[in-house]
Amino acid sequence: MGKSRDLWVGADLGGTSMMAAVIDVKTGTVLGEAKRRTKRELGAVAVTQRLGKCVQRAIDKAGVKRKDVRGVGVGIPGPVDPAEGRVVRCVNLGITWDGYALQEALERLIDLKVTIDNDVNVGAVGEHRFGAGRGADDLVVMFVGTGIGGGLVLDGRLRTGFRYSAGEVGHMVLMDGGPLCGCGERGHAEALASRSAIERYIREARASESGPMAEGHGEDEASAQMPSGEILAAIEAGDDVVQAAVAQAQRYLGLMVANCVNIIDPEIVVIGGGVLEKMGDAYLEPVRSVARQHFINKDDMDRVRIITAELGDHSGVIGAAVLASQRLLKG
Amino acid sequence: MGKSRDLWVGADLGGTSMMAAVIDVKTGTVLGEAKRRTKRELGAVAVTQRLGKCVQRAIDKAGVKRKDVRGVGVGIPGPVDPAEGRVVRCVNLGITWDGYALQEALERLIDLKVTIDNDVNVGAVGEHRFGAGRGADDLVVMFVGTGIGGGLVLDGRLRTGFRYSAGEVGHMVLMDGGPLCGCGERGHAEALASRSAIERYIREARASESGPMAEGHGEDEASAQMPSGEILAAIEAGDDVVQAAVAQAQRYLGLMVANCVNIIDPEIVVIGGGVLEKMGDAYLEPVRSVARQHFINKDDMDRVRIITAELGDHSGVIGAAVLASQRLLKG
Repeated sequence: MGKSRDLWVGADLGGTSMMAAVIDVKTGTVLGEAKRRTKRELGAVAVTQRLGKCVQRAIDKAGVKRKDVRGVGVGIPGPVDPAEGRVVRCVNLGITWDGYALQEALERLIDLKVTIDNDVNVGAVGEHRFGAGRGADDLVVMFVGTGIGGGLVLDGRLRTGFRYSAGEVGHMVLMDGGPLCGCGERGHAEALASRSAIERYIREARASESGPMAEGHGEDEASAQMPSGEILAAIEAGDDVVQAAVAQAQRYLGLMVANCVNIIDPEIVVIGGGVLEKMGDAYLEPVRSVARQHFINKDDMDRVRIITAELGDHSGVIGAAVLASQRLLKG
Repeated sequence: MGKSRDLWVGADLGGTSMMAAVIDVKTGTVLGEAKRRTKRELGAVAVTQRLGKCVQRAIDKAGVKRKDVRGVGVGIPGPVDPAEGRVVRCVNLGITWDGYALQEALERLIDLKVTIDNDVNVGAVGEHRFGAGRGADDLVVMFVGTGIGGGLVLDGRLRTGFRYSAGEVGHMVLMDGGPLCGCGERGHAEALASRSAIERYIREARASESGPMAEGHGEDEASAQMPSGEILAAIEAGDDVVQAAVAQAQRYLGLMVANCVNIIDPEIVVIGGGVLEKMGDAYLEPVRSVARQHFINKDDMDRVRIITAELGDHSGVIGAAVLASQRLLKG
């Protein structure tokens, strides 16, 4: 059985924690995984050392040897130049990552071939190969959380784009002149359909309920976060304000899906991320309805599946391992 | 020299006129072309006969024989199933085209292999192979006229899409709840950035200038068209209302480009159609500026070229011939 396996390590480097896992890319099985705090304040070089140890720990936990593993894929929360193996920049990790040659640094540490890409892109690859998108040639994947990221798989391959920034679905304009996005521009999908947008809708509704005198208080709460679990609990408790806020975000998510379908015409749109993991498929019913209303091609609308991601937290590590197996096979 | 040529016929079937041309797909040279009225009231079968004669006339004008031509590509103003060789439907041509097996019908008439696709898709192929997009792997092409159509060339190949409706950039939502689009939904790009949108902006401004009493008059003009040449003349004459209307359309075209770049990240965005043919590159300066403002990846923004189409009326016939040469080469 050992011989029939094809083992690669996938790693997912986040702003607060990192995860690495040994994956059999023939089956998508996770053989062993390890998690560590990122400790980003230590800077790129020290965090890379922590990442190397995390990879080694995953290999140990899988009960295999380093030589059984053929290479490593790493997902980074920011733009990446995969051809050069460099991080372009990473706001979540700090300025020591600007232009940092992560691939080479990690290869030296762990003596394995490494490839890197954006974390959402590798998540899309994971969902394509072993998640909700398996079997499809063309896939748009969106992850809805604090922000909204996305990745495209076209003709079975990750589309990285001319400047390695394809799939930035969170920054499509849906409402010219609309609310301010984290990127500094107005009316982007991320400012209308993310969990942060839901929080803002709730704050605005509460502030207007309380009248102008309470607005100062509303401002104080501006940075307070409402986790997806709390949003779900409030809906279940029949909180009208939260229900309306979620409905608004669902509507915009539907417009995002429609725009992607009208432009790219994929077979499947996979939607994942924290909001979907908590709310499940029920969250997508109104999304589908709004999206289909705006499809320009209304033939066989049901054939375009709009479905929840399946791999949860593991989409990144599985996708990174699959991407490594695709890119590094010559090794 | 005859031997080194590779001759195919490209045809562009419109609602009012049709054009066919013999193209050397090695060089993009038009060897001979013919135009006819479509006479769509005659229905699909008779119009196909007219198309067959138009193809023959182009072959005659090119001074070649039918056996020198290797096949025919046809662009249709509506959704097409190229695998089946069927027109899905064609609002501009009438209901006799619903599900019509044009490929087979034309092949029988002219005894040449035929392939069909959407007219905007074949225009995109033309611009990619011999127009503004030559040499690029990835291209988004938009044609701005009464409506807005588009086509995608990714990795050097036309992207037709899962339901053969990729590239419908005119129906991306840019302004939720905005003006009504011809498709029946609100806020689509076509209702905000097309020549028809410019006309509507002008009508609305004139109506509000004239006060509420004049609104009835404005309504009467609702169907009056303002050709792109007249719009240009009004701008040159310093007409503030027309200038403001055009600026508004340019702004939305910029948002369209930004959305495409953020999602697809192509090397080039080519913009053609009647408006661009009249106004030229100057029309694109404000478009580029708005688009770049919304690029999420602001590195090397100038590397993403936003440029005017080069083939004008011939993009369709050239692209159809190129597409035929790509698809029918086995013949």
